[in-house]
Amino acid sequence: MSDPTKRADEVDSDVAARVRDSFARQGLMAHLGAELAELSSGRVVIRLPYRDELTQQDGFFHAGASSAIADSAGGYAGLTVFPAGSSVLTVEYKINLVAPARGEHLEAVGSVIRSGRTLTVCQLEVFAVAGSERTLVAVGQQTLFCLPAKS
Amino acid sequence: MSDPTKRADEVDSDVAARVRDSFARQGLMAHLGAELAELSSGRVVIRLPYRDELTQQDGFFHAGASSAIADSAGGYAGLTVFPAGSSVLTVEYKINLVAPARGEHLEAVGSVIRSGRTLTVCQLEVFAVAGSERTLVAVGQQTLFCLPAKS
Amino acid sequence: MSDPTKRADEVDSDVAARVRDSFARQGLMAHLGAELAELSSGRVVIRLPYRDELTQQDGFFHAGASSAIADSAGGYAGLTVFPAGSSVLTVEYKINLVAPARGEHLEAVGSVIRSGRTLTVCQLEVFAVAGSERTLVAVGQQTLFCLPAKS
Amino acid sequence: MSDPTKRADEVDSDVAARVRDSFARQGLMAHLGAELAELSSGRVVIRLPYRDELTQQDGFFHAGASSAIADSAGGYAGLTVFPAGSSVLTVEYKINLVAPARGEHLEAVGSVIRSGRTLTVCQLEVFAVAGSERTLVAVGQQTLFCLPAKS
Repeated sequence: MSDPTKRADEVDSDVAARVRDSFARQGLMAHLGAELAELSSGRVVIRLPYRDELTQQDGFFHAGASSAIADSAGGYAGLTVFPAGSSVLTVEYKINLVAPARGEHLEAVGSVIRSGRTLTVCQLEVFAVAGSERTLVAVGQQTLFCLPAKS
Repeated sequence: MSDPTKRADEVDSDVAARVRDSFARQGLMAHLGAELAELSSGRVVIRLPYRDELTQQDGFFHAGASSAIADSAGGYAGLTVFPAGSSVLTVEYKINLVAPARGEHLEAVGSVIRSGRTLTVCQLEVFAVAGSERTLVAVGQQTLFCLPAKS
Repeated sequence: MSDPTKRADEVDSDVAARVRDSFARQGLMAHLGAELAELSSGRVVIRLPYRDELTQQDGFFHAGASSAIADSAGGYAGLTVFPAGSSVLTVEYKINLVAPARGEHLEAVGSVIRSGRTLTVCQLEVFAVAGSERTLVAVGQQTLFCLPAKS
Repeated sequence: MSDPTKRADEVDSDVAARVRDSFARQGLMAHLGAELAELSSGRVVIRLPYRDELTQQDGFFHAGASSAIADSAGGYAGLTVFPAGSSVLTVEYKINLVAPARGEHLEAVGSVIRSGRTLTVCQLEVFAVAGSERTLVAVGQQTLFCLPAKS
């Protein structure tokens, strides 16, 4: 039964727990220093503070860092709308790197565009935050596969 | 002048040096533990040994790790065919994750499909190597921008 | 000089004329029966009425028809924000077909996400309209190249 | 039982019939003037002769025409490796337009890269043929969905 006290976009506490557990098991997210920043139904935000260990050759965030948190944000956004017990796999994604990714941290936003029984499509956006400025640095589109719970 | 002793697909030593220098400046490649494994004209291979710090929630290599080395392999493949002094930017890429990425190491192969004055298109392939088995785990396509040398 | 009587999102009459002229020269748009339906700064809508000549094997609109109008809508959306005299080339696009495209007509919406000097990124959406229902059937992302006016 | 007289890449006659029947039902392919040119296991070629009705604003083949035949070539390449009675849906594709598409005809080649139970990934290539010259004008990657036979 869904929780009658939660807001429309709020996720059930078991969904939140499922996402947090899975995120905590991703060695790469810890290794990069990424944090799960926001979690609502169909939308997840991951934050990644700047470190020299995340750069490309000019000292900006590497596209691989932006992409890694974008992919995870989209994947977990999908997981919030999947049936209980499901797992999520990324089928594919496409990402445009539209500006140099410089700033104190990155914020990747994954948002479900359309959710089907097997496949779900998400929008991916990555912003670089420098002081009070928030610049779109990457935008993408992702296809997810919902792996049903094993019975 | 091009070196008359090199093979057709061999890169000039200054091109090789340019790629190795740029790779060495990528904080993320070192942080992941990636190595530049092969370098020829229009083709670069990057190798990434397994570590728990590179995993997704099921213990396989994270798509973000596969993508990061695929993006770098393609970018450097492009750089080998660019005019001297140019830099490379990734405009966008698309990647399909076609099998679980498990094994002792990953190998990302970036190959130039078509090179233009401003834009270059590369094929990206990532293989997982486990003992004597080599499995295609990701395949993609990437658009690069050639930033000419500043005069 | 920009026209002081036009709305913020309105395009100058010469931009509108440039888009309409180019659209009229596209043999394929006429052959498919597509019409330029809306035109504002950074956003273009193309409408495509149903015909048996546009179908795939199950009688729905063919993905090729959806894609063709999506690509043109994005390209012209880009052209509305390019400097006078520029031309537009599609570098690449990616499109997800998220629902069967059935209805009386399709509507492709191209919207500029970020515009640079050389490259511009657009969002592509295609809706199928059946009576009062409007269903998202495709969503994509496109990279455009701005070819400057020949001097 | 598979036919012992056929070559490794030859398709069973029922598979060939299934592809030809489906192609013949695609109103758009006939409307564009496209022909099924080659058909082997995991690889399909579609040919599209030049007509003024297929052009973009500069008189070359419209990207929408290239994409439509590329999408169909990939889809049917997938269908040749699917279990009997299956149908094929395009999940998404990405295509780079790498050269102006001018010539007497286009040739779209769809090739299966990796085939899974539910999802299959194809490479898409489009060549423009002008006299004895054959130029790569588009290259892409496509994800297909195998819809099992209804029991």
